[in-house]
Amino acid sequence: MGAVHERAVGFADVDAAGTVFFPRFLAWCHEATERLFEPLPGGYAELVTRRRIGFPTVHVACDWRSPLRYGDVARHEVTVTKLGATSVTLRHVIARAADGRLVATIEHVIVATDIDAMAKIPVPDDCRALLATHQAAT
Amino acid sequence: MGAVHERAVGFADVDAAGTVFFPRFLAWCHEATERLFEPLPGGYAELVTRRRIGFPTVHVACDWRSPLRYGDVARHEVTVTKLGATSVTLRHVIARAADGRLVATIEHVIVATDIDAMAKIPVPDDCRALLATHQAAT
Amino acid sequence: MGAVHERAVGFADVDAAGTVFFPRFLAWCHEATERLFEPLPGGYAELVTRRRIGFPTVHVACDWRSPLRYGDVARHEVTVTKLGATSVTLRHVIARAADGRLVATIEHVIVATDIDAMAKIPVPDDCRALLATHQAAT
Amino acid sequence: MGAVHERAVGFADVDAAGTVFFPRFLAWCHEATERLFEPLPGGYAELVTRRRIGFPTVHVACDWRSPLRYGDVARHEVTVTKLGATSVTLRHVIARAADGRLVATIEHVIVATDIDAMAKIPVPDDCRALLATHQAAT
Repeated sequence: MGAVHERAVGFADVDAAGTVFFPRFLAWCHEATERLFEPLPGGYAELVTRRRIGFPTVHVACDWRSPLRYGDVARHEVTVTKLGATSVTLRHVIARAADGRLVATIEHVIVATDIDAMAKIPVPDDCRALLATHQAAT
Repeated sequence: MGAVHERAVGFADVDAAGTVFFPRFLAWCHEATERLFEPLPGGYAELVTRRRIGFPTVHVACDWRSPLRYGDVARHEVTVTKLGATSVTLRHVIARAADGRLVATIEHVIVATDIDAMAKIPVPDDCRALLATHQAAT
Repeated sequence: MGAVHERAVGFADVDAAGTVFFPRFLAWCHEATERLFEPLPGGYAELVTRRRIGFPTVHVACDWRSPLRYGDVARHEVTVTKLGATSVTLRHVIARAADGRLVATIEHVIVATDIDAMAKIPVPDDCRALLATHQAAT
Repeated sequence: MGAVHERAVGFADVDAAGTVFFPRFLAWCHEATERLFEPLPGGYAELVTRRRIGFPTVHVACDWRSPLRYGDVARHEVTVTKLGATSVTLRHVIARAADGRLVATIEHVIVATDIDAMAKIPVPDDCRALLATHQAAT
């Protein structure tokens, strides 16, 4: 089951063309991913700062279908589509909350990583259990 | 022939894991794309603000191979790989300047757009001529 | 009575020294200010996009006393200290939520502005009434 | 003698009101400050990452007089106005390059800091010598 939240477009999320600057969507994807780890004690922050484990992004493929503007609210759904030994594939679907119009879809691959060694590691059991609750129904 | 420039990683380009925050690379791709338009009078800015033409991003596919840290300098090469009627496909290759180590490759599709109508338009002739100079040799 | 909210330090709010990049605090001040306008229909966004009224910042004076890191939660209190004809002075006090340690105090002056004319205007009555509810007790 | 450079307003430097988002000016001040350290081997980055010395900002006082838009180029001058035992006061003057119109003045106090101990230290001799070359004539 995907995790859903809504977020208002920020005053500084837009660019000189008046629509959300496309790299901002990737920052939103990171924030949506961090939210998945919130049930861990101290959340993603403690994972990174104390356990020194992170999930850096190794791949994204994004398609934008329509723009968002200041005043719009985005509906952001993230689903785990593949839970591998060391990597996790997420699918983000961002729509305009007011009318459900599709804005962007993003495939997002992250890899469990020992931050100090910068080496991939197996997805820790507690993270795996958490991510499994957001897997797409099969 | 691709366009190449170097850029130092900024003090605030990194995240809490100490490496460049991945959405920043997309912002760099936008800046590299803007540079392609510099030979136009007033550059990309005048295209957007006076002619009201932009090239919003409709697709990116990015692969990251190694991190960059504060103190590193990135070598950023952008090549036009497809010059269509209304869309342009760019390929960005980002490496660490010091040793040429590959950092990221990004496929980046932009579409010529009437900003006020938010409708796609043919790539203007002057833009097309400029972009053609950065096409990959065939 | 000041308006208070808490916000977690974001993964990308920090810089290469590992602490929140100081301009981020100003962005937080803008967000805290926007929140004051939330009771208006459509909030600050509608004020800006439909009524074409904004409150650009003309002055800030900030003192930082201690750093914040990823994993910290900030407690942000904003109080209206002066409600003038066209300008509003806000006082932001940011502390670490866990122990109340003072992080920063920011004096922040904004001016009611006709965005299209870029000219100052009297603070609109509905905005004034709203801001008055956050005035410091006298 | 102040250090001067020019910088074009970036496509994503503006906000939903169409003018440069005010916290961006503070990021520019940091970049202008980093430039002062460029003559050191490895610049500010090596100071931070190898010597573990930084100059965090403890105070800013900013006044904005006129907006900047996408397409504008800023002329940024930074002068050292006070070179203390552990702190340095900088004065940034930002104007529109095209006509010299004043945009913002920023007083900016930074403190030499041992990043690991997060404790202030005397301004290192090589930094002091460098900063002295940008002192205002007396």
